[in-house]
Amino acid sequence: MSDVAANETRDLISSDKVEGTAVYDRNGNKLGTVTNVMLDKRSGHVAYAVLSFGGFLGMGSSYHPLPWDQLTYNRDQGGYVVDLTEEQLRGAPTYSAPEEARWGDPTYGRKIDAYYGSVEGRRSP
Amino acid sequence: MSDVAANETRDLISSDKVEGTAVYDRNGNKLGTVTNVMLDKRSGHVAYAVLSFGGFLGMGSSYHPLPWDQLTYNRDQGGYVVDLTEEQLRGAPTYSAPEEARWGDPTYGRKIDAYYGSVEGRRSP
Repeated sequence: MSDVAANETRDLISSDKVEGTAVYDRNGNKLGTVTNVMLDKRSGHVAYAVLSFGGFLGMGSSYHPLPWDQLTYNRDQGGYVVDLTEEQLRGAPTYSAPEEARWGDPTYGRKIDAYYGSVEGRRSP
Repeated sequence: MSDVAANETRDLISSDKVEGTAVYDRNGNKLGTVTNVMLDKRSGHVAYAVLSFGGFLGMGSSYHPLPWDQLTYNRDQGGYVVDLTEEQLRGAPTYSAPEEARWGDPTYGRKIDAYYGSVEGRRSP
């Protein structure tokens, strides 16, 4: 999408703008990019952003679902900042191909939330 | 995405699965497809689904932002159902190219909500 005004404003951002946006650590090192977000159907909340990490053109990448509330957009960097190190990401729940994500397992989300110290209530406004 | 289990479960759906999903009226007529969703940055809520409507390969399409709570997923149809007629959609706030969306105008979302009889509070769980 070419026009920033159309796919992002102060309050709103388009899903296709989030997809592909870079994710940085606190020191400005690029950790990866957001491939997609997982939406909670019942609450209408954004539950997770899936960070793809490493690899080249999708080969050898790993995917790390992050609780959405871990991401803070930084306008100057043009990407999201997370308060996580590459080491912390390496130890986090991950999968190496999209079809390996265990979203169907109800404990999977809880495992992710627990790793990042996020509680479900935190995602509600 | 090939694997349903990976991009949709009972509770979660991936943004890239929502994008491209068909939207039907109550009589099963296809109205269009979801091109993208607009996320509310502060609340983390899905605010709008943008329905593309008519046209061919994006030429001559029109885009209709719908309050997210208007869409109900129907498993049998494999798409979203809205309680709207094609006529109601034709009269709704619309734009003919992505860059024409007036998301930057704070009254734009309210105009959409008002048209569909949605109130902001309804989107909160």
